[in-house]
Amino acid sequence: MSLSRRRFVSGVAAAFGYASLWPTDLFTEGRQLAPGRRVPLDLDKVAKLNNNENPYGPPESVVQAMNSAWKWVNRYGAPDGGLREAIQELHGVKAENIILGAGSGEILDVVGITFLLGGKKVLGVEPSYSSVYQQAASIKSEAITLPLNRDYTQNIPALIEAANRYASQIGFIYLCNPNNPTGMIVPKEEVKQLLDGIPKDMPVLIDEAYHHFVDSSKYATSIPYVLEGRPVIVTRTFSKIAGLAAMRLGYGIAPAAMIQRMRPFATGSQNVLVKFGGAASIKDTAAQQKVKALNIQVREKTMAELRAYGCEVLPSEANFFMVGIRRNVREVGPEFSKRDVLVGRPFPPMTEHLRVSVGTQDEMNRFMAAFKEIVPAGAPR
Amino acid sequence: MSLSRRRFVSGVAAAFGYASLWPTDLFTEGRQLAPGRRVPLDLDKVAKLNNNENPYGPPESVVQAMNSAWKWVNRYGAPDGGLREAIQELHGVKAENIILGAGSGEILDVVGITFLLGGKKVLGVEPSYSSVYQQAASIKSEAITLPLNRDYTQNIPALIEAANRYASQIGFIYLCNPNNPTGMIVPKEEVKQLLDGIPKDMPVLIDEAYHHFVDSSKYATSIPYVLEGRPVIVTRTFSKIAGLAAMRLGYGIAPAAMIQRMRPFATGSQNVLVKFGGAASIKDTAAQQKVKALNIQVREKTMAELRAYGCEVLPSEANFFMVGIRRNVREVGPEFSKRDVLVGRPFPPMTEHLRVSVGTQDEMNRFMAAFKEIVPAGAPR
Repeated sequence: MSLSRRRFVSGVAAAFGYASLWPTDLFTEGRQLAPGRRVPLDLDKVAKLNNNENPYGPPESVVQAMNSAWKWVNRYGAPDGGLREAIQELHGVKAENIILGAGSGEILDVVGITFLLGGKKVLGVEPSYSSVYQQAASIKSEAITLPLNRDYTQNIPALIEAANRYASQIGFIYLCNPNNPTGMIVPKEEVKQLLDGIPKDMPVLIDEAYHHFVDSSKYATSIPYVLEGRPVIVTRTFSKIAGLAAMRLGYGIAPAAMIQRMRPFATGSQNVLVKFGGAASIKDTAAQQKVKALNIQVREKTMAELRAYGCEVLPSEANFFMVGIRRNVREVGPEFSKRDVLVGRPFPPMTEHLRVSVGTQDEMNRFMAAFKEIVPAGAPR
Repeated sequence: MSLSRRRFVSGVAAAFGYASLWPTDLFTEGRQLAPGRRVPLDLDKVAKLNNNENPYGPPESVVQAMNSAWKWVNRYGAPDGGLREAIQELHGVKAENIILGAGSGEILDVVGITFLLGGKKVLGVEPSYSSVYQQAASIKSEAITLPLNRDYTQNIPALIEAANRYASQIGFIYLCNPNNPTGMIVPKEEVKQLLDGIPKDMPVLIDEAYHHFVDSSKYATSIPYVLEGRPVIVTRTFSKIAGLAAMRLGYGIAPAAMIQRMRPFATGSQNVLVKFGGAASIKDTAAQQKVKALNIQVREKTMAELRAYGCEVLPSEANFFMVGIRRNVREVGPEFSKRDVLVGRPFPPMTEHLRVSVGTQDEMNRFMAAFKEIVPAGAPR
């Protein structure tokens, strides 16, 4: 990875840019919700652990594939670098089951528009990736959100009960798996329990943005439910495992009839470079494995240190985790920023759990040093 | 330009890709409408004069700006390379007046969704850039289209009459200026006549995708009407003058209240490289002038040759033109394809006018050679 990384940033001198710094960080992972106060951000100086990014950047294979597509930059009807074919092969689906987007964020929005317009509501848990709930609000719809269980898992029986009770009002169910911000999975048995327990025709949007980081055998992708013909939309992104967040590419997999309903609300047009990069990423499973292994190694080391320091840390299957800090997250964000460490925004109602993205080992060392200055030690646990 | 172009395609070997060839070309300029039969397209062999592209590619300044942004590829909240500021300065508008999109095509779609959903109709002429009408149909709305005048100009009095007669049914008016596929402008006085003659609150979408190629003093951009507070949305693209069609960047300028209504239906997220490239393109007015001058020179030479050959050629202010061929366009497309020249799709009801994009001088020479084989000479005119 390090060689790729060096080539990847080669030629970039004095790289200063602008990005919002917590606590005026109004970005979700992918969408700017409102213009925030902007301060200079120096990527070489700051440990950016606030947006669940891939700190290593895209692997060499992906960079090369993107660079091979420059020729098409001024053309329409360019080839896609084999992207659609690669997605079809990967999941055993047809072209009619695939919708591409500017990150999976576009697909989340498109699902919201397609299935909520006219007053239907989205049902899900809170906290979760709030982009879907915010999109619902922006098109004058609403979200019905249920609290997490006391162990921070998603309450599947409660979701089933609400889905049946409010069936006529619900446009779709949103299930983020693993969930953002907790990093915790919904086990495959519980996904099945949910799909079997709700009205047969109720759409379920299953957000698998962090799929590639999961190691637990209790988890499984929900794409097979699409193949069964269930009204399930699964979203994936190249922003995380492939390190292409700012290139904007993701996709949704769903039954053809649902995809057809969604297409009029999607741009249907993606940047040519990232299509080539996305295809290469799917094929470079070795690079994916490297990122996954490195993420687990750095994450587990950091989590062990936090536990030794006396903090509660939620089990994570993602490239981020939550740590209990016995202080309000809103207070500590600026403290971390002062130390050039950016941490996650608040995720109410979990006001005393800080979401931390897994950066490089060096970045996590800097995070730990800052953490020990900001958060008082507790009894080891 | 030639140096930039060489650098731009450097390192690309054996560049074969796939793109649809007319007559199964179901692409508009930017959006694939339906999967067509795909045949290999060799950009080094084929004169691609079917999609109004910029044959020179982006200038060196734009390529450099894009390459300077790689560092941000795996990050959210990346800087925009000064894009929004450049747009603000260029047009004298505020951030609240700007909506970015994946090409101006995304903005056209978003206007359609925002102002047509619920059964309103779009009013415009035919032929024009049909993407807007197709989007209307895809969301179960309709288009009210009026024929062009006998000289192929847009019939402004008829648009005004229809706008008033069907006011309660109309969501917005679509005016493509210069018009695609004719290449002809709506003079500034007639734009004013239109805006003054229609109901005061009726939105007008003015598509200025080909703005940068216009040389006529009778034309003016409609952005000042936005500054006046009229319900006008003007769209611009980096696909044409900047040579960035496959990078996907465009924008709309409109009163803040209209932009706010549109935002929930837009992705709100663009590729980081093309944002840097777009900002550089706005600033590199010399490169814009070069492309404009070259386009006029090559276009006028080709049009003179076609007129000398006895063909009617419509006056053009764009990077394409229409030539009367006294045969059905549908018949000749495959004939051109066989000779490795791709020409415009049919634009009914102008069934005997062929739309030809302006390529390089070499490409137009090849077009003329093919044209003389396919279209019989007429009396010189």
